[in-house]
Amino acid sequence: MRSLMNPLDLSVEEIDELIDTANDIIENPADYFEKCKGKKLAVLFYEPSTRTRLSFEAAMYELGGEVLGFSEANSSSAAKGESVSDTAKTVSCYADIIAMRHPLEGAPYVASRAGSIPVINAGDGGHNHPTQTLADLLTISREKGRLNDLTIGFCGDLKFGRTVHSLITALSRYTGIRVVLISPDELKLPGYIRRDVLEKNDIPYTQTEDLVSSIPELDILYMTRIQGERFSDRDEYNRLKDSYILTTDKLEGAKSDLAVMHPLPRVNEISIAVDDDPRACYFKQVRNGKYIRMALILKLLGLSKSKHEIIEQTDKSVYVKNILTCKNPRCISSCEQELAHIFKLTDPEAGVCRCIYCEAIADKRFDYIAGEVIKA
Amino acid sequence: MRSLMNPLDLSVEEIDELIDTANDIIENPADYFEKCKGKKLAVLFYEPSTRTRLSFEAAMYELGGEVLGFSEANSSSAAKGESVSDTAKTVSCYADIIAMRHPLEGAPYVASRAGSIPVINAGDGGHNHPTQTLADLLTISREKGRLNDLTIGFCGDLKFGRTVHSLITALSRYTGIRVVLISPDELKLPGYIRRDVLEKNDIPYTQTEDLVSSIPELDILYMTRIQGERFSDRDEYNRLKDSYILTTDKLEGAKSDLAVMHPLPRVNEISIAVDDDPRACYFKQVRNGKYIRMALILKLLGLSKSKHEIIEQTDKSVYVKNILTCKNPRCISSCEQELAHIFKLTDPEAGVCRCIYCEAIADKRFDYIAGEVIKA
Amino acid sequence: MRSLMNPLDLSVEEIDELIDTANDIIENPADYFEKCKGKKLAVLFYEPSTRTRLSFEAAMYELGGEVLGFSEANSSSAAKGESVSDTAKTVSCYADIIAMRHPLEGAPYVASRAGSIPVINAGDGGHNHPTQTLADLLTISREKGRLNDLTIGFCGDLKFGRTVHSLITALSRYTGIRVVLISPDELKLPGYIRRDVLEKNDIPYTQTEDLVSSIPELDILYMTRIQGERFSDRDEYNRLKDSYILTTDKLEGAKSDLAVMHPLPRVNEISIAVDDDPRACYFKQVRNGKYIRMALILKLLGLSKSKHEIIEQTDKSVYVKNILTCKNPRCISSCEQELAHIFKLTDPEAGVCRCIYCEAIADKRFDYIAGEVIKA
Repeated sequence: MRSLMNPLDLSVEEIDELIDTANDIIENPADYFEKCKGKKLAVLFYEPSTRTRLSFEAAMYELGGEVLGFSEANSSSAAKGESVSDTAKTVSCYADIIAMRHPLEGAPYVASRAGSIPVINAGDGGHNHPTQTLADLLTISREKGRLNDLTIGFCGDLKFGRTVHSLITALSRYTGIRVVLISPDELKLPGYIRRDVLEKNDIPYTQTEDLVSSIPELDILYMTRIQGERFSDRDEYNRLKDSYILTTDKLEGAKSDLAVMHPLPRVNEISIAVDDDPRACYFKQVRNGKYIRMALILKLLGLSKSKHEIIEQTDKSVYVKNILTCKNPRCISSCEQELAHIFKLTDPEAGVCRCIYCEAIADKRFDYIAGEVIKA
Repeated sequence: MRSLMNPLDLSVEEIDELIDTANDIIENPADYFEKCKGKKLAVLFYEPSTRTRLSFEAAMYELGGEVLGFSEANSSSAAKGESVSDTAKTVSCYADIIAMRHPLEGAPYVASRAGSIPVINAGDGGHNHPTQTLADLLTISREKGRLNDLTIGFCGDLKFGRTVHSLITALSRYTGIRVVLISPDELKLPGYIRRDVLEKNDIPYTQTEDLVSSIPELDILYMTRIQGERFSDRDEYNRLKDSYILTTDKLEGAKSDLAVMHPLPRVNEISIAVDDDPRACYFKQVRNGKYIRMALILKLLGLSKSKHEIIEQTDKSVYVKNILTCKNPRCISSCEQELAHIFKLTDPEAGVCRCIYCEAIADKRFDYIAGEVIKA
Repeated sequence: MRSLMNPLDLSVEEIDELIDTANDIIENPADYFEKCKGKKLAVLFYEPSTRTRLSFEAAMYELGGEVLGFSEANSSSAAKGESVSDTAKTVSCYADIIAMRHPLEGAPYVASRAGSIPVINAGDGGHNHPTQTLADLLTISREKGRLNDLTIGFCGDLKFGRTVHSLITALSRYTGIRVVLISPDELKLPGYIRRDVLEKNDIPYTQTEDLVSSIPELDILYMTRIQGERFSDRDEYNRLKDSYILTTDKLEGAKSDLAVMHPLPRVNEISIAVDDDPRACYFKQVRNGKYIRMALILKLLGLSKSKHEIIEQTDKSVYVKNILTCKNPRCISSCEQELAHIFKLTDPEAGVCRCIYCEAIADKRFDYIAGEVIKA
């Protein structure tokens, strides 16, 4: 059994395979009508997210399976304070695979360790949302015919935008990628992503505040929403906000085969008028999201004709158990009962450890001499 | 693709066809078990309505299809402020047909224009609820064997009762209809319906405050609830309320083949004791509601053996875009982003225009010389 | 048609039959994949209970049926004040069987009398929860190979624990049962259960405050949660609470084939560490709960190959209608409109009557001379 917490849990080959399966589903849907007959997907949504939930449900139904679960914590045992682990163990008796959305980082990971069926992370707080990234990759692949040799502009809130961080990281494994970071100064891409992802992988990038002048060179324009609340300076916000709203005239200088993407839901950052432009791909993303989820469900249930043997990566890393404590208040370890605090030693020289649930860096340096070494 | 917003969107022939299909389903249910296999109904209920939602769900399941969606706005993207149009475009990627309930008038119409799949209006505020009316027509047809030559009494709140207005309008297209309007003076049928529907179609009607003396002549008695809040004069309410509660003794003077109907849910306006009377048809209405929805789903999905070719009515009316503004605070145009304000010139001589979403009359006279003419 | 309100509605033979069916399902699941094809289960949950609801849904899906309903009252017509009877009559038009959870005692019973399809009580306030008891019996039967000759310890809140009262009552019909009641003095088993169930059936029992010293003699240890709120004396609570938390070391003296059970959800009354002990059976209970519900659905739909002819017990008891009034504020008769107050004369000599909905004892003595005798 294998779960999906993070897009990088999948090798480039496995992602290619998922994309191939998704394309085959799109071309031959009838071949898949009964693939999951008798199987059940449990959608455990501790916070509402209609788009993501309905996408998973549609995916399972188009595979001939059934769906059960809940769409809000208050209609769930969570209201009675049941732990995520117990819920996962219980639901393992009712379903064949879980898609979990949770406000706390690492909650789906805890579920995948406690339960006996595959778990798909459908969004854990501001941490990960791998199926969104897979939908983005499928869309790029279908629109451009490749995942290499692309100039991709990311526009809007690059500081807090989880989908942006995740897609940049996923793209960093391909060749010939160029990135244009378009945002107000206050919402620039965090330094650690620039360093650990872009620079570390020698991905050329530029940073600018100007959307219009950046558009002509782009193959992909990935728009995101700018929330006024993010600005310390209200005037600054009012000065800038319109310049990050994509309109038909801003698209005039763009390539004829530009692909405009957006994770949705949008508020007003893309004018409705743009929807009719053939370069608008954000609703194609929605459809692709369903198909890649179908491919993923098949893969995790072992039902896809896989070229690759799926095996758990045996992990030689050092793990530190109940020595360090995660200080991230949004980490599942802050409330799940009797949950061990486990950190992975990610940089032995520097003594840097990261929480295995939320990946937050430990507040203390850990010098490894002899710690309890466990398998995560 | 065709949607259903208003019972009058359907011709009398199409309604006959739906009734024929419903009757065939009732007689040969097994013929329909797999009709919608592989199809999905999206129930998008922005406000709760268990009866209507479960009726649609049961209908789709009895056709072999699947159901997804939400039963309250707070478990939907709407909470994140997504527009109805974007939700409709998204759900078009997940389902084959939509049943939408929304507190704002015209919201399902906006969805039908934005999405790429049929939309059924499952109730938009106080505006329309066409499947209730279709259920009423099927019930009358089954109980009386005809939709012509009937004396129908409407009792209760005729002023605010949406189902009453809608059924009267639907019946106005049949011959030999007589209407008895039974209500307190404060809750009389609005003048515009008496004039534009009853009088315009030469339908004889009487108005009375007295239920008991009206019953003997009736073929159908359509009961509705009287809400105390509607009365300005509390004493008046207390004086009248019991006289509009249907009891077994009030039924003594009635015809032996009277059909007592009620849209449900009831509070206390029909005594439970009446349920055992063979003339009580309100739970038959519930069952018929399921069957007519099955027929409607089949028709809109193009799966019914239709005698009539379904074609969009080409519409020669004049539409006024972004010149007049709808002042109805319950109209979807009051909050949907970038939604054009479009009015239909319903009375060119008088310069009367109606909002295409909620049908409210424009607050300004519009003298048509040359306005932008668009296809609704 | 027959409904299940109380575990004792089933004879010992019928319970054996359900257990046989459940075991057959576990061994030959494929034989049951299509048993309920075309059937619909309505889950009417007026209060949230994810575990129970998902168990019913999984059960129906594994039988090839469909599910509809609601998981909270606020997304149901109940919000509009519809009576339970009307909802049951309506849902009888949409589904083939109902599983109802309701905060008011007797509500599912009212539904079973009003509707035309079988109703399963999925928990009515503090009153009954028969499918939990059936799951417990199946688990005991599978773990121990018998329901006779067992020493069973009940630990925790024995005063308010509905599942405990219900299981003790169900076990009282078997032979060779010994009961050990382990609880703080404040939460002892109510006297009426000790008298009317244990003593009346000559079941030997002991009462103790000490879990550890009781464990060695037990075949079954049934743990329940102790809620601090239940204690009048906070210090008393703090003194005791840890002694009722089951830990691995407390299990040291236990039999090697002890079965540790818990109705779940747990809070902290069983340490997570115990989960890995082979004697931990509470997640097996979850799985068994699904299988016994499958067996029950089949039985109530008349789809199980039954050795016993299912017949309504003809009831010669005396019922008192609208003479006594139920004073239990949690009884459905306190709010359901036009619901007759009906009491069953359970002890003619003493003039004791019990409400047929919630089984509360009437506050007045009723001396039977001639009362209206009706069929419940």
